Amino acid sequence: MVKLPLYIAVIAAAFTIPRMAAAAEEDALLKQAQEIFQPLPKDMATAEFPITRERVELGRSLFFDPRLTIDANMSCSSCHQPAFYGTDALAKPTGVRQRPHPRHVPTNLNAGTSFVIHWRGDRTNLEDQVFQALTSPITSGQPDEKAVIDRLSGIPGYAPLFKAAFPDEPQPMTLRNIAKAIGAYERRLVTPSPFDAYLAGNREALLPAARTGLEKFISTGCVACHNGVGVGVGGGMYQKFGVVEDYWKATGSNPIDKGRIDVTKDPADLYVFRVASLRNVAMTPPYFHDGSVATLPEAVKVMARVQLGVTLSDADTRDIVAFLESLTGELPANFATAPVLPSGAVAPVK
Amino acid sequence: MVKLPLYIAVIAAAFTIPRMAAAAEEDALLKQAQEIFQPLPKDMATAEFPITRERVELGRSLFFDPRLTIDANMSCSSCHQPAFYGTDALAKPTGVRQRPHPRHVPTNLNAGTSFVIHWRGDRTNLEDQVFQALTSPITSGQPDEKAVIDRLSGIPGYAPLFKAAFPDEPQPMTLRNIAKAIGAYERRLVTPSPFDAYLAGNREALLPAARTGLEKFISTGCVACHNGVGVGVGGGMYQKFGVVEDYWKATGSNPIDKGRIDVTKDPADLYVFRVASLRNVAMTPPYFHDGSVATLPEAVKVMARVQLGVTLSDADTRDIVAFLESLTGELPANFATAPVLPSGAVAPVK
Repeated sequence: MVKLPLYIAVIAAAFTIPRMAAAAEEDALLKQAQEIFQPLPKDMATAEFPITRERVELGRSLFFDPRLTIDANMSCSSCHQPAFYGTDALAKPTGVRQRPHPRHVPTNLNAGTSFVIHWRGDRTNLEDQVFQALTSPITSGQPDEKAVIDRLSGIPGYAPLFKAAFPDEPQPMTLRNIAKAIGAYERRLVTPSPFDAYLAGNREALLPAARTGLEKFISTGCVACHNGVGVGVGGGMYQKFGVVEDYWKATGSNPIDKGRIDVTKDPADLYVFRVASLRNVAMTPPYFHDGSVATLPEAVKVMARVQLGVTLSDADTRDIVAFLESLTGELPANFATAPVLPSGAVAPVK
Repeated sequence: MVKLPLYIAVIAAAFTIPRMAAAAEEDALLKQAQEIFQPLPKDMATAEFPITRERVELGRSLFFDPRLTIDANMSCSSCHQPAFYGTDALAKPTGVRQRPHPRHVPTNLNAGTSFVIHWRGDRTNLEDQVFQALTSPITSGQPDEKAVIDRLSGIPGYAPLFKAAFPDEPQPMTLRNIAKAIGAYERRLVTPSPFDAYLAGNREALLPAARTGLEKFISTGCVACHNGVGVGVGGGMYQKFGVVEDYWKATGSNPIDKGRIDVTKDPADLYVFRVASLRNVAMTPPYFHDGSVATLPEAVKVMARVQLGVTLSDADTRDIVAFLESLTGELPANFATAPVLPSGAVAPVK
């Protein structure tokens, strides 16, 4: 071994000590993260909502099929577009026949991790959301179950798919089963990310800036709401938007959405919304229930200000954004790729 | 070797002779088909419209990007849906802001094989079609080039893609280049089918019913228009719809489209349309310029009746449909799978 001159050994030691301290800090950060967050499971099946291959296949076709809706020109995938990670890049989408949706499209990726569905929690789970959407005047425009089932019955390829997905039922083509099938499909749409690899113990899965951002995300207090309950880094609770300051003063929102109070009529729910999951958040601008903020750095600053009373520096914001970027996973292949749908034209008006 | 009783040898010979005759007929059919039709090339590049990897990548993103259009909620893929082989299963689509399109959506698959674009041939090639669509009031709603480019300029990820695709141009983000890029992408969207394998000499690539159907397709006279000019089994010429009988008496069309005369003002063009390519026709109901016929067997019978004065039996129709089904190719992977688009929200109205 080469003997080093003393001054070089001293310099080397000076670099080694902080590095050792840094390593200990890194270990502590990982341990802390593992206590706060949970990695994504491989799917979101439950006893009530099991996943079968046949339900997923049927659900995937229905998800992409515009023939479910009144003019046969909008599908679930019209707003939940693969190309935008299950969103649509708009502040608020337009539904059938130019009818405006009142709120921003949340991504359907990892949506099965959320404790309730929709910004105000007025859908209990994915299946409830789909079931209600199928006859919603804005989302679907179909007046009732019969109208939807009549349309599907006219497409010969669907009957065997329903039969395979619900083999014990004499009449499997129902709104409830459409909802179960699309629900089963969506419960498979999970996107493990570098952050999940980190939580599994691989510190190098996060870039240094992302680890710094994680530390700031924790120390700033973001984890009070965006934590492991529900595994979505959010999606596990309700919270008032604007704890410290009225949210619209920071977002410029107009109109001002009163949130969950309009669902429950409980004054405690004024300006209360479901905490959004932050998984894939870097891929899904614009932000908030009304899409009022266009970029992620701006959204991070708004949240720190109105929820925590903190004014984040540009450097801190950059680090937190680097952490949030580590929540981006790969698009699931069976979402990125459209199925070939059962063939059948919608009857033309002559 | 086992010696067969005479009566068995006689029976065997009785089966062998027709089989030999059938083999000769099969050879003749293949030879005839090779004279009439041409297999698909691997792409539709031309000297004027070359294909580069960078143009295809840019064009693919633009094809799927709804932010090109006025309300940022319709893309090329809204009507040319992968799930429906580049069509939309509707008689006629609805464009932006509920504005009705006057004619049925032709598939964009293999569209580069067509000698002109659109039902009336009023677009000279794919690039001309895209260029005009970008500011069409129905397809796009954008008033002018500036509006489209302003939108794209607000999405940071696009500038490098344009620079890579058009490296010699100081200002590559133009409508002309959008058209060239989407054109390059579409010129790659070819779908070789069992029929192409057959034309290459593999007789077994077609099922017996399809070979019978091919023979009837030729002998009935369909190949007068649906032939190898333009390699699309159609897409190579204009023809009057309703040579023998007014087309609307067979299709029930209402209103009655006068066809190319409205473009050229030439009386000879009354009820004249571009002959449609039949590639993937089994996957793209409904049929004709107005989507007035819902199923392929019905469409085949209508064509035989109004173009050739032939009343096809159900059996003949089934065989011809079996042949047409052999024109279905696999969806190209870079069409079936949506790209992840450059991130960027469309500015919300506050």
